[in-house]
Amino acid sequence: MFFKVKTSEEVLEILKGFDPVDTETIFIGDALKRVLSEEIIAEEDLPNFPRSTVDGYAVRAKDTFGASENLPALFELTGEVVMGRVPTDMVAPGGAVRIPTGGMVPDGADAVVMLEYCHDLDERTIEVNRTVSPLENVIRPGDDLKRGALIFERGAILRPQDIGLLAGLGIHHIASYRRPRVAIVSTGDEVIPIDQRPEPGQIRDINSYTLHAFCSQAGAIPVNLGLCKDSFSDLREVVVTALETSDTLWISGGSSVGARDMTMSVLESIDNMELLAHGVAISPGKPTIIARFGNKAVFGLPGHVASAMVVAEVFLNPLLSRLSGEARAWEDNHFYQQAELERNVESASGRDDYIRVKLDRRDGRFFAEPIFGKSGLISTLVEANGLLKIDRNTEGLYKGQIVDVMLFKPFKAKA
Amino acid sequence: MFFKVKTSEEVLEILKGFDPVDTETIFIGDALKRVLSEEIIAEEDLPNFPRSTVDGYAVRAKDTFGASENLPALFELTGEVVMGRVPTDMVAPGGAVRIPTGGMVPDGADAVVMLEYCHDLDERTIEVNRTVSPLENVIRPGDDLKRGALIFERGAILRPQDIGLLAGLGIHHIASYRRPRVAIVSTGDEVIPIDQRPEPGQIRDINSYTLHAFCSQAGAIPVNLGLCKDSFSDLREVVVTALETSDTLWISGGSSVGARDMTMSVLESIDNMELLAHGVAISPGKPTIIARFGNKAVFGLPGHVASAMVVAEVFLNPLLSRLSGEARAWEDNHFYQQAELERNVESASGRDDYIRVKLDRRDGRFFAEPIFGKSGLISTLVEANGLLKIDRNTEGLYKGQIVDVMLFKPFKAKA
Repeated sequence: MFFKVKTSEEVLEILKGFDPVDTETIFIGDALKRVLSEEIIAEEDLPNFPRSTVDGYAVRAKDTFGASENLPALFELTGEVVMGRVPTDMVAPGGAVRIPTGGMVPDGADAVVMLEYCHDLDERTIEVNRTVSPLENVIRPGDDLKRGALIFERGAILRPQDIGLLAGLGIHHIASYRRPRVAIVSTGDEVIPIDQRPEPGQIRDINSYTLHAFCSQAGAIPVNLGLCKDSFSDLREVVVTALETSDTLWISGGSSVGARDMTMSVLESIDNMELLAHGVAISPGKPTIIARFGNKAVFGLPGHVASAMVVAEVFLNPLLSRLSGEARAWEDNHFYQQAELERNVESASGRDDYIRVKLDRRDGRFFAEPIFGKSGLISTLVEANGLLKIDRNTEGLYKGQIVDVMLFKPFKAKA
Repeated sequence: MFFKVKTSEEVLEILKGFDPVDTETIFIGDALKRVLSEEIIAEEDLPNFPRSTVDGYAVRAKDTFGASENLPALFELTGEVVMGRVPTDMVAPGGAVRIPTGGMVPDGADAVVMLEYCHDLDERTIEVNRTVSPLENVIRPGDDLKRGALIFERGAILRPQDIGLLAGLGIHHIASYRRPRVAIVSTGDEVIPIDQRPEPGQIRDINSYTLHAFCSQAGAIPVNLGLCKDSFSDLREVVVTALETSDTLWISGGSSVGARDMTMSVLESIDNMELLAHGVAISPGKPTIIARFGNKAVFGLPGHVASAMVVAEVFLNPLLSRLSGEARAWEDNHFYQQAELERNVESASGRDDYIRVKLDRRDGRFFAEPIFGKSGLISTLVEANGLLKIDRNTEGLYKGQIVDVMLFKPFKAKA
């Protein structure tokens, strides 16, 4: 079976063929960064009563017209608003009612004069030395949100303040896409559990821990299927289990042609598995396999950890956004830092290169130092703050050039 | 008691007086974004054996010298490396051993020739048509990390690849600062639980849900103490409980002078409570109270939700970084987006203004639209993508000026 190596754009087109996972109802206290699966309409006005934004006196604005420090207006103090209660006193012409911030503005009043522009003359009389306009210092019913307003579109990601707004409207449960379940399996006869001591020739399972944390960071649920030997029947069994229990499957390992061939054979042996890509025109990350089983994307990731990480940042990241139902899944969600390149970087044409770079800040300017270690070295990823993309039509970048570095998360901007 | 209003810089100095919380031992699978409380030194070489980075033949490099397409060198094929095993065949002069990517390079060999530069002539003989240098396509023991190397400093935040490195070294548990526990209480006679319908004059509890999610986002553990009426004894009881069970206490609500005075009285009534600030020179957010009880910071936050959010982004954010033990706690961890300001913005001198702004991308450029709604309106925060700081020595900003917008999290960069 022949597969042409796919470009990044072709891979992204392939990923657009996958649909969001199904939905569930969740409590808003657990909804941070979750994605709405239904639009939300305000079913009531917020607030539902006229509120004062200051401590002061509720009055009729026109009774203050012309009032100034030199010519204060006098008002009869007729009561006080109690927080959380409907005022018992209405404001008559020439009257004033004391009101705290957040209190309900009494009937008859249409403005609030701040305390600092008022003086008590006696227990029943205050002097106001400033003119207020109608509605000054007043939030009207519906000023925050009007009943019937569209608050959030389907596919919106919830931030702290968005959850606050839902709370304010009494929407305590919402319909959200599930967090996608990502089955991760690490293959290879040389890979051992991390609590074992490697004999010469063996290596601990770096990749599935890296991918596990990558999933968590993206808001997905990693399902660790552990280690799998380079055996057709073992790997086939793991793949079948993963497809039953998860929304996507990432097979890590298999840097060798033999291991990749076995992954291909296993995938080809499964009914209704559609092979979509065998090789992607990026570096590192070329030996990537992509297949589809129903709505489940199956990735055979390169065994070299830096290669797997590049594939994760560039392709798995938007895949998880898409499965999570994000309306803007295909928009790059990385932050970039502009920096001055510290060395020349060559790049082969015909593929997109992703260079690991370390950022340094000196005299308030950022500098990007390329890290040229082999892609099998985890230390090169640990040293790096991000990736520098050199697209396939660019032959290289020059020292001193200003570049945009795609940042790994979490990134702490250096002071 | 008299407190002068503190500047932002003075508040940050105050926060530097608080120490990180205590530590615990955690599994690396749960360690994403956690902070190391001890430095980590590699106790072994990674890898612990010479590894091939390609599929090919392990040879002695000098036996390939001079080999080319026109003049290939002949090698005797003497065996094959099995993944995860110590090779049984050593490489003799003129000999070659087949090796997969990740396999252990046999004794005698010092380089690997990629498969594509080799041809099988018969079962025992291969032809190599390229010269390789010593160590070409070989990772030596310790190339990734050498035993004794400092891997992470105390105070480092763990990213996915950092966890991968720990896995590779067999460090499955680490010493980490605890996630700080943040007690949140919402006060006010007008505030009701979110599952109740507000009568006129009442409002649902927006602030504690917003702050709860803000804490989760920062990696802290929110401890929701629920609602508290504007009663000295009720509030005092909640404060005492919070100080016993949490690492910091945030009292939300109290926009009115009366409510703030009550918070102050309650704090003053507690032995060993030290009042540090009553009012901060920022807008919105001025009516902020800061106190200290041992190593526990107590914040009386403004009741207006946008004000509370500004205080959270500017002060509570570094406080949580500090309590979490981050080495770079005092470095701003926000991302900023450059944008062109769409309107003039005035600013009073003597205070730092934080303007809510909405970002728009048109023709590849970002534009920042100031949102001028009242700070009690949650919708203004929901509409905003971030904050624009105008420091107290700047009188205002002009339409067309390029500004740096501090982004709310999560932020999805618009395509």
